[in-house]
Amino acid sequence: MLVSALIERKRDGGTLAPAEWRDLVHAYVAGRVPDYQMSALCMAVVWRGLVPEELTALTAAMRASGTELTWAGIDRPVVDKHSTGGVGDKTSLLLAPMLAAAGAAVPMISGRGLGHTGGTLDKLEAIPGFRTRLTLAEATAQVRRLGVALIGQTDELCPADRKLYALRDVTGTVASVPLIAASIMSKKLAEGLDALVLDVKRGSGAFLTDDARAIGLARTMIALGEASRCHTVAVVSAMDRPLGHACGNALEVEEAIAGLQGEGPPDLMEVSFALGVELLVATGLAADRPAARQRLQATISSGTALDCLRQLVEAQGGNPAVVDDPALLPQAPCREVYEAPVAGIVGTVSPRPVGYGIIALGGGRTRVEDDVDPSVGFVITAKPGQRVARDEPLATIHARDHAGLAAGRRALDEAITIGDRADPLPLLSHRISARWEELLA
Amino acid sequence: MLVSALIERKRDGGTLAPAEWRDLVHAYVAGRVPDYQMSALCMAVVWRGLVPEELTALTAAMRASGTELTWAGIDRPVVDKHSTGGVGDKTSLLLAPMLAAAGAAVPMISGRGLGHTGGTLDKLEAIPGFRTRLTLAEATAQVRRLGVALIGQTDELCPADRKLYALRDVTGTVASVPLIAASIMSKKLAEGLDALVLDVKRGSGAFLTDDARAIGLARTMIALGEASRCHTVAVVSAMDRPLGHACGNALEVEEAIAGLQGEGPPDLMEVSFALGVELLVATGLAADRPAARQRLQATISSGTALDCLRQLVEAQGGNPAVVDDPALLPQAPCREVYEAPVAGIVGTVSPRPVGYGIIALGGGRTRVEDDVDPSVGFVITAKPGQRVARDEPLATIHARDHAGLAAGRRALDEAITIGDRADPLPLLSHRISARWEELLA
Repeated sequence: MLVSALIERKRDGGTLAPAEWRDLVHAYVAGRVPDYQMSALCMAVVWRGLVPEELTALTAAMRASGTELTWAGIDRPVVDKHSTGGVGDKTSLLLAPMLAAAGAAVPMISGRGLGHTGGTLDKLEAIPGFRTRLTLAEATAQVRRLGVALIGQTDELCPADRKLYALRDVTGTVASVPLIAASIMSKKLAEGLDALVLDVKRGSGAFLTDDARAIGLARTMIALGEASRCHTVAVVSAMDRPLGHACGNALEVEEAIAGLQGEGPPDLMEVSFALGVELLVATGLAADRPAARQRLQATISSGTALDCLRQLVEAQGGNPAVVDDPALLPQAPCREVYEAPVAGIVGTVSPRPVGYGIIALGGGRTRVEDDVDPSVGFVITAKPGQRVARDEPLATIHARDHAGLAAGRRALDEAITIGDRADPLPLLSHRISARWEELLA
Repeated sequence: MLVSALIERKRDGGTLAPAEWRDLVHAYVAGRVPDYQMSALCMAVVWRGLVPEELTALTAAMRASGTELTWAGIDRPVVDKHSTGGVGDKTSLLLAPMLAAAGAAVPMISGRGLGHTGGTLDKLEAIPGFRTRLTLAEATAQVRRLGVALIGQTDELCPADRKLYALRDVTGTVASVPLIAASIMSKKLAEGLDALVLDVKRGSGAFLTDDARAIGLARTMIALGEASRCHTVAVVSAMDRPLGHACGNALEVEEAIAGLQGEGPPDLMEVSFALGVELLVATGLAADRPAARQRLQATISSGTALDCLRQLVEAQGGNPAVVDDPALLPQAPCREVYEAPVAGIVGTVSPRPVGYGIIALGGGRTRVEDDVDPSVGFVITAKPGQRVARDEPLATIHARDHAGLAAGRRALDEAITIGDRADPLPLLSHRISARWEELLA
């Protein structure tokens, strides 16, 4: 294999054969293809793209670079979700126990927050004692026992993706639909899933602010999933405002618990149900969408989803009492209500300033190695389109100190605008599968 | 300097500021920017190109990465030529002594053969004892004494280009007009030249077979030269057949010596004169083109160019007697005349099969580290358009053994076609300077 010839072919708009992708990934992980060739190839892929056969082969090679989970003998369908990332998005914390309580097995592998978006691992680690670093063997045993595990990526799964992503991150080669799709789907498919639901975020707070590109990415991932006999469906949801009210790690755990107690904000519940419905229908755990929704709602009204979260927290070393007493979560010492400076209609609650505001409060990362303060953040009850009076409370800032409160105010001043109109995106706008695309709004 | 942000900007079609290119090259040479970032950036440049200000800044930064020659107190204009590479092209061996004998200083830095083309260094090393590895200090002292030195690239000159070229060679990023132009011109400008002539080859045997691209490269290099007050002119010459008759290192030295004795093939002499004329006019060593040509011819008829070659060979450790007795050059033990298989008009003498034929004979390289046998090659007297009888001699094969003769016959069978017509390119077709472009044919 002459790697420079492969790079030249891709540079000139040609395609690499499946076996060439397989050998390349294999040699890269083994250290026989140097980073400087792989980064040049990645840039050529950003430029020229990949045809479907190349994408399938690359994804399969990355997936096969490490341990692949198998679920022989399990009596539950194995499912997971993936979100393209947003602010206030704690759906994983609700969905994982709801799905497990509804009869699915959920080996959920999540990430950390970076940029303006939060990450499920950081939220979980707000629970005192919670361990997200299980081995794959521990995680699969727990899934077989409880129906659910929530862990971070391990070196065992998709080492090719881990190595390649670190390289892409510093070589300007992240922004490529096929490379993003291969990175996400290689990991998800290595989990041995029967079904996967993608939450594709739209709007100013999404990573991909271009709708066509976001939907193109969803279609690409769906094709990859279906090619590996993993039913894959995407739901497109709004990220022009935070999801739910709470933004910040411990605050989001508290809101997720409230949601499992039947007291979550309506938008958070709607998105969680919409995602869960897809998985129950795809796996046959429910006969149709109304039945699926009913089954998920029953996990809340019966308390089985909350029970499941309690067991999950305990199994992973966390204090299960937080599920019944969220005051045991880390609490920020300074709180301040943020009020409407004028009367009018809330025009925007922009996720990016909110996300960067959490970082300014010490609750997010500017670098991968940063520590986060789980207690800080915002609870923003204001939603675009809502009519508010002057001095009406719109949010609460949770900060470490007075400087944090000031930073929080500045972030909310930027995020929240009040005027005479609002034009929010529909909460759920598309549902996309291999067979059809449905406009929901 | 956040290198990934620079890569992303170029990837998205933006431009880097001159200071950013300067800092980048500096940090790359110092090892603070890793190869994997530089190769991704190079691929983005292949994709997006460089605007003139970027190209000037990159070239200047590469030029400034090592020693830059200065010629304080020298009473001669300093000149050099660069060829884009061809087969049978021994013009440097004629031009360097002719120009020195005509009053110029010629610090000529040449390369080795690679692919189907030959390299001046390999030809020189066919002369027993000839040393091409002088230090820059030795070379400049020799130029001041004799008017000429013929050496290989040293680590002292443009280390940034050396490092970058080695990286580009294995990352599919050679094929970029701005990167090629920066690579060539940074080295040439570091020689401290007053004038430079570019021999841009056209036709099937050229590296760039697309005329528009070859001429675009010439224009780019001219703009870079002129921006650094180095008069730069390009001549476009035919490489749809070998230049002259001899193809192979020692054979080409012998033909160059014959040329300096007034007995060179007409096409070789025409191209050599055309290139030399540009330099004598550009530097004011001749008042106009006819005077320049006369002056160059006088260096041959008077024997001063041949004297100069003799001194040059001696100064660089070679046996100067070869200049008077080319039989002292390495001789191939097996020779065979290659005859026309049919009567007709010679249609093609394709340079690529001839070049690859030299490699098959052991006289060229497939890898940089290969040794070459200087004695082997071809003397091809047939030219496209020439009417030949059946069994008329067209060429002589010089080989190590009978297997070599057979390989040589196969190469000539492929290279030489005989039919009822020929359509050769004009030997000299364009002359291009910063101010004008002249069609010569």
